[in-house]
Amino acid sequence: MRNLKLEIEYDGENYCGWQVQRRNKHKRSIQEVLEKALQKILQEKIRIIASGRTDAGVHAQAQIANFKTNSKIPPKKLQKALNALLPDDIAITRAEEVNSDFHSRFCAKTKAYRYTILNRSYRCALLKDKVYFYPYPLDISLMRREAKYLLGRHDFKSFCASGSDAKDTVRTIKNVTVKKFPYQLSAISYQQTDCPVIVIDIEANGFLYNMVRNIVGTLIEIGRGKFPAGSLKKILLAKNRKLAGPTVPAGGLCLLKVKY
Amino acid sequence: MRNLKLEIEYDGENYCGWQVQRRNKHKRSIQEVLEKALQKILQEKIRIIASGRTDAGVHAQAQIANFKTNSKIPPKKLQKALNALLPDDIAITRAEEVNSDFHSRFCAKTKAYRYTILNRSYRCALLKDKVYFYPYPLDISLMRREAKYLLGRHDFKSFCASGSDAKDTVRTIKNVTVKKFPYQLSAISYQQTDCPVIVIDIEANGFLYNMVRNIVGTLIEIGRGKFPAGSLKKILLAKNRKLAGPTVPAGGLCLLKVKY
Repeated sequence: MRNLKLEIEYDGENYCGWQVQRRNKHKRSIQEVLEKALQKILQEKIRIIASGRTDAGVHAQAQIANFKTNSKIPPKKLQKALNALLPDDIAITRAEEVNSDFHSRFCAKTKAYRYTILNRSYRCALLKDKVYFYPYPLDISLMRREAKYLLGRHDFKSFCASGSDAKDTVRTIKNVTVKKFPYQLSAISYQQTDCPVIVIDIEANGFLYNMVRNIVGTLIEIGRGKFPAGSLKKILLAKNRKLAGPTVPAGGLCLLKVKY
Repeated sequence: MRNLKLEIEYDGENYCGWQVQRRNKHKRSIQEVLEKALQKILQEKIRIIASGRTDAGVHAQAQIANFKTNSKIPPKKLQKALNALLPDDIAITRAEEVNSDFHSRFCAKTKAYRYTILNRSYRCALLKDKVYFYPYPLDISLMRREAKYLLGRHDFKSFCASGSDAKDTVRTIKNVTVKKFPYQLSAISYQQTDCPVIVIDIEANGFLYNMVRNIVGTLIEIGRGKFPAGSLKKILLAKNRKLAGPTVPAGGLCLLKVKY
């Protein structure tokens, strides 16, 4: 059997996430839609494995997934057929054949997520479900300093959703950046100078359920002055979800890259 | 009565356009949604006038509209109240009081539209309804040279939708640019180097029904080699809609700016 790897971009707004979730039965999952399209094209039952699940409403620029098939279809042809069949909000940006031992989840070394905050006094209609609109002033330099405590190997229990069944809550964060820049809606509009966006990038060897969104929620509480300087380290060491900030909305989150 | 001016950003995907249209009765109009929100806040019947109608699916970064009111509400407060009440895909980006003789449509000197083409071999899910996906190679320099014929005062009958009841089809185009650049999905993702976007900007003292979309459709036929060099001038002079290219989809179009 051949092992095919796909790079998948999706707008998560209308999905219950990568996988079917009990809470969101009325919305389809990305996996379900992809498997159906693959089965239609390849005429065989397909089970697709992603680098990791993304939650309802979370976007992906380059989710990685693989599946085994008996089909001899060339990857480029499969990509074309899938893009013709899939809905507008899911696109296959690359397809290639890989070694039989490649596994999207187990072989992943790191994953990088981006969280985007629109930090001005009014909403943005053109980015409605791509950014988290937060109108209050934020101290970016403080957020940046606090975020540094996340670097390295830690028990991230404080940032893990309480309903999660993860036993091992230790992860290694390789990179965290907090950047502010005037957003450029470059392709669809003039450059907006009054569109300040805060972008938080986190790269780790793995993520707990809601981990990025809980970290960002905590950083926002710090940036806004609700939690004092030094809070992030304290919260991290306390291993208690109740001490961290709220879970920010899914729409601001995007899976950027999976490294192998 | 006071005269209030609004700058409005909207994602046109889920609307039948600025105004109610017979063909699209199942979708709401932007005007209708705005008037309802204004009436709820101001507790009086409001009639709002835009710089011009945008068609179903067309976006706006800065549509301008004005209305008369007896209310004494400060513009900043009205903006906040509207943004709290309006759906996510409509945002008020500015509100101010203007002279009683200001009229969004009659006082407009020029309007600028941008049409965005995604010119690579596969779709983009994150920009699904914001760009026109066109996978075939295009000769940009030829398109740019041909577009120059549009500059100045001309009868644009060839680019006016056949169903239109416009009597005077003469307009003045002040600016046309055709640019290609690697798109930066800057806020929500890493910079994509393999995301070539062609952006066509047109500024004119007014536009006929579907004029931008028919011009772009014609430029694409030229860029792709279906119409020879020199075609645009010929089509313009012929004043015959049948000679021009097809009307490209609404999603690629955005009203950028109205100058007064």
